[in-house]
Amino acid sequence: MAASDTLLANAIRALAMDAVEAANSGHPGMPMGMADVATVLWTRYLKFDAADPKWPDRDRFVLSAGHGSMLIYALLHLTGHARPTIDDIKNFRQLHSPCAGHPENFELPGIETTTGPLGQGLATAVGLALAERHLNATFGDDLVDHRTWVIAGDGCLMEGINHEAIGLAGHLGLGRMIVLWDDNRITIDGAVELSSSENIAARYAATGWHTVACDGHDPADICRALDEAIADPRPSLVACRTIIGKGAPGKEGTSAVHGAALGPDIVAKTRLAMGWEPEAFEVPEEIAETWAAAGVRSRDVRLAWEARCDADAQGATFRRRMSGELTEGFTLKPYLDGLLANPQKLATRKASELVLGTITEQLPETVGGSADLTGSNNTKTKALQPLNRNDYAGRYVYYGIREFGMAAAMNGLALHGGIVPFGGTFLVFADYARPAIRLSALQNARVIYVMTHDSIGLGEDGPTHQPIEHLNSLRLIPNLDVYRPCDTIETAECWELSLQDATGPSLLALSRQNLPQLRTDASENLCAKGAYRLVAAEAPRRVVLVATGSEVELAVSARAQLEAKGIGADVVSMPCWSRFDAQPADYRRDVLPKDALIVSIEAGTTMGWERYTGLDGLRFGIDRFGASGPAPKLYDYFGLTADAIATKVAAALEN
Amino acid sequence: MAASDTLLANAIRALAMDAVEAANSGHPGMPMGMADVATVLWTRYLKFDAADPKWPDRDRFVLSAGHGSMLIYALLHLTGHARPTIDDIKNFRQLHSPCAGHPENFELPGIETTTGPLGQGLATAVGLALAERHLNATFGDDLVDHRTWVIAGDGCLMEGINHEAIGLAGHLGLGRMIVLWDDNRITIDGAVELSSSENIAARYAATGWHTVACDGHDPADICRALDEAIADPRPSLVACRTIIGKGAPGKEGTSAVHGAALGPDIVAKTRLAMGWEPEAFEVPEEIAETWAAAGVRSRDVRLAWEARCDADAQGATFRRRMSGELTEGFTLKPYLDGLLANPQKLATRKASELVLGTITEQLPETVGGSADLTGSNNTKTKALQPLNRNDYAGRYVYYGIREFGMAAAMNGLALHGGIVPFGGTFLVFADYARPAIRLSALQNARVIYVMTHDSIGLGEDGPTHQPIEHLNSLRLIPNLDVYRPCDTIETAECWELSLQDATGPSLLALSRQNLPQLRTDASENLCAKGAYRLVAAEAPRRVVLVATGSEVELAVSARAQLEAKGIGADVVSMPCWSRFDAQPADYRRDVLPKDALIVSIEAGTTMGWERYTGLDGLRFGIDRFGASGPAPKLYDYFGLTADAIATKVAAALEN
Repeated sequence: MAASDTLLANAIRALAMDAVEAANSGHPGMPMGMADVATVLWTRYLKFDAADPKWPDRDRFVLSAGHGSMLIYALLHLTGHARPTIDDIKNFRQLHSPCAGHPENFELPGIETTTGPLGQGLATAVGLALAERHLNATFGDDLVDHRTWVIAGDGCLMEGINHEAIGLAGHLGLGRMIVLWDDNRITIDGAVELSSSENIAARYAATGWHTVACDGHDPADICRALDEAIADPRPSLVACRTIIGKGAPGKEGTSAVHGAALGPDIVAKTRLAMGWEPEAFEVPEEIAETWAAAGVRSRDVRLAWEARCDADAQGATFRRRMSGELTEGFTLKPYLDGLLANPQKLATRKASELVLGTITEQLPETVGGSADLTGSNNTKTKALQPLNRNDYAGRYVYYGIREFGMAAAMNGLALHGGIVPFGGTFLVFADYARPAIRLSALQNARVIYVMTHDSIGLGEDGPTHQPIEHLNSLRLIPNLDVYRPCDTIETAECWELSLQDATGPSLLALSRQNLPQLRTDASENLCAKGAYRLVAAEAPRRVVLVATGSEVELAVSARAQLEAKGIGADVVSMPCWSRFDAQPADYRRDVLPKDALIVSIEAGTTMGWERYTGLDGLRFGIDRFGASGPAPKLYDYFGLTADAIATKVAAALEN
Repeated sequence: MAASDTLLANAIRALAMDAVEAANSGHPGMPMGMADVATVLWTRYLKFDAADPKWPDRDRFVLSAGHGSMLIYALLHLTGHARPTIDDIKNFRQLHSPCAGHPENFELPGIETTTGPLGQGLATAVGLALAERHLNATFGDDLVDHRTWVIAGDGCLMEGINHEAIGLAGHLGLGRMIVLWDDNRITIDGAVELSSSENIAARYAATGWHTVACDGHDPADICRALDEAIADPRPSLVACRTIIGKGAPGKEGTSAVHGAALGPDIVAKTRLAMGWEPEAFEVPEEIAETWAAAGVRSRDVRLAWEARCDADAQGATFRRRMSGELTEGFTLKPYLDGLLANPQKLATRKASELVLGTITEQLPETVGGSADLTGSNNTKTKALQPLNRNDYAGRYVYYGIREFGMAAAMNGLALHGGIVPFGGTFLVFADYARPAIRLSALQNARVIYVMTHDSIGLGEDGPTHQPIEHLNSLRLIPNLDVYRPCDTIETAECWELSLQDATGPSLLALSRQNLPQLRTDASENLCAKGAYRLVAAEAPRRVVLVATGSEVELAVSARAQLEAKGIGADVVSMPCWSRFDAQPADYRRDVLPKDALIVSIEAGTTMGWERYTGLDGLRFGIDRFGASGPAPKLYDYFGLTADAIATKVAAALEN
């Protein structure tokens, strides 16, 4: 006989309590409050097979309220996934346990996306749901036909990213996305009414969502609401009225159960009230079996899918795309040959548009977009038609003025698999998207950020629009490759590297202003090394001018002046710090020799460049906010001219 | 005879066209589209006196759609403000003109807040409006009784920050805040419907706002809507149906007029259609006089206010607070003496709470808050009662799970004057608030960020919650002082410095974990120098261990091990890079002498520390994402123990 929903849910509650108790750290309130909803979802609705958590057509489940991580660890374990084991759960929140404090997609295959930073799970789910519709339109119902489920708390709904995410989902008509809102009326500081008094359902409805409410502790009522959500063509918000920490006598329904162990007394009382007798971390056989059965509920569906995919004319292509491998035969060689034959003086944002022309033609897995700066970011090519509710097969998303929402959605597109997303905004607005860029890096998501207007070179828009600290602040993010190419060739090379790196995000910082084509050879992707000698000294080398992007041209001019004075100077182009840092020591020493004055030139903050110049080198840059004026005047005003640089370098050598 | 509203508005349109044409850069569409609304607002509703743009009881006007900067430059000029002059406007977007590409509060006294990064003007206005209510409750109707007006575009309303801002304003019942939405249905990429399909009025209504619509080109209808907005006790959204670039034949109503000069042909046609004959930058006398009259409309009101303020028992206090000067007699000496007499081993977040106890008692101008982490950030003291719609005299804001909204609102509180705001979240979520932190710095706003849980020392919550790159990424922001105190004494010193710096923001990075009190003397605020020798070497000095915050304790232990081996080592505590960088060269050389091995120790990214260690020094830190586990295990895992450090330092000296 199958165990009742309540018993199944109590197994979650018990595991959550036990794990938090053992760690003496964690969040029991949410798993206990949402146990009933999660039980209904995972035993009756969610399409998955515990034997293959990477089955491409599984439903995606996102625990946006990531602090309730014990909920998903309990669900994965109880449904028979290989991991986490009960020992993993016993090691909840311990070093090297896959059951980390918050769910990490790189720890357990059943975790679709890393959550914890509030609101982002939900916003990432928008990308997951959009990927489903896009791949469905591309590969058909036989191969792609699944839903995206989200559990979100009041925190997720209060964060600004929520507005951007639901605005996108409502606009794109992502009807297969269903958000289960843990409506427990409690935040960390106390009652929700301390800080908010909005009508959330009305707000979602205003944004094109279907909404329905249910008693989150009544399985039949939960089913009614989920059925209604599935039936409605709009994305759905299901307000699940719950009691946080449900079952914990004297503590349930208060913020006291949110983020700390209940303590042995309350745990004992809760067990007594639930009639739960097993030892800690033990699950009675009947309950365990019922849960295990839920884990194989969709096995036949999966096997039928595998057979369909094997038989499908597009099956191999679909599998290849889901594996992350780029379309075979992808090459930029003819494009590069064309540039060499016919050099172009172009802004790197324009050079990016050119190379994207051939990339988007060759790689149908690319899906582009911009946060309402399409004509400035140059992200739309001929091959890309709008992706919207009228044509999910399109490959260009008008993300609107939603930088953060775009970045989070791109994380979802990448994590779903089958898609290589890229999207644009101004570099200065990387700040708006920064929390999602960090999660791209943490999650090893191949997302390509196209950030144009990358310095004071944008001119008149002034300090609010001029990146100063942004390049270095982005270079600090682990596992993010920041590229700043100097010309058309480097732009193509950096795009190639970004596409080929399936293990993390890349960010291209591109100029608004025109730049000469400096490279005369493209036989090797030199950007792969992060930095390389672009021009070698003629006179005996005393100086190395290291520059990036638009300032490489400046370095070349300054070098000419130095050489004219008999001072030998190399020019090193350094499009990518992280790649250079990964080179062998002898390569790095060859590029930046100890016996030369190392000079950095970049129209951004100098703090950080000591890494390459040492304390004895010179650093040209801008250590204050920018100013409004025509770009050439600004370069002059901030001392970033070949004259000023050559003069100061020569003077430094004389001292 | 007074010129008609249409003629007044056309003067704005003409100046906007002329200035953008002269600069061949800028945004004519918005000023032309909103000229009629702005004319009605500034000639009939806005309380201001051009002779004293800093009059404390003026209405605040915020151009949240900052790209339409020519609108406010035209308004300030036409109403007779000393600046901008017509020459300033002729130099629109030129280096050193106060008429920068986007409005900058430090360029012109009539600009309340720097805008351009979309959504933030509106979110800052929430702080301005809240400041008004708080000061009204504190000082009474006689001294504080004004409104906050905002012009916002679709971009401001689409950004996530909009959700946080209106959520706060609706919850706090800021009925004196009125947002004039430039409802022109156009974004840069084209029609709004490309990227959004929400019912904005319904969304605002769901969030506790009053909404009303009007024809943005019909003065009578605009007046009707503004009257209704004023009458309603809720904050109001006035949807002004407008045509972007109104008046430009063939181009109005399209995104083509948004962000580029119209060109001489269209300008000529527009002038013809408007019947506008004057030369460029000229305004006919009758129109100029009518505008000038609007600039003195509230002069009597201001003079009456000045008289009331002079007579008011609290008038001098109010003026002192508005000047930014701290309450007289403020001192932390007794508090520091207490610490010296009775040393405390405390987390610096707890030390912060203690010192805030005396600060909030002594300084009624302080208004605290937290983004739903009150008990973790330790930001609430006994002196602070909740500030909400039932008690605007309260001094503690429950900002909700809205880090960005909190930061922007704090900018508004600071820019209004009379208030020194501080607010807390976890350091890792500085990323969520980063765009507003940058604007605190650019705007010279005294905002104090209380960022706790400042490293892997927070333990089990794992990589999504552990700051790694954050300290250095924040240190990169110009004009932001980042403090990381190591004990109770330094925490108090850093608070003192933050409060005393009226010219910019400060950020306190505070530990979750307990730290010993290392300082034994508090006769001088040593943090003022940014870094100082905490412990001097006993054996001949060969090493300087430079550390911050929780790692200073580590440095002290590592030093003891080195000294035991006969290796003399200083310990330098470096709570604030920017302050240290501002010290004279000889002081810096004394603290970090060239003849010693400089070693940095900080539980964050090492990239950037080369600035102090040089390339030959050692850098202990974490150059990857964190991990979930108990804090001591994490410190051990990442090699941040006294043993590991002392061993490596000793080995380096042997090489």
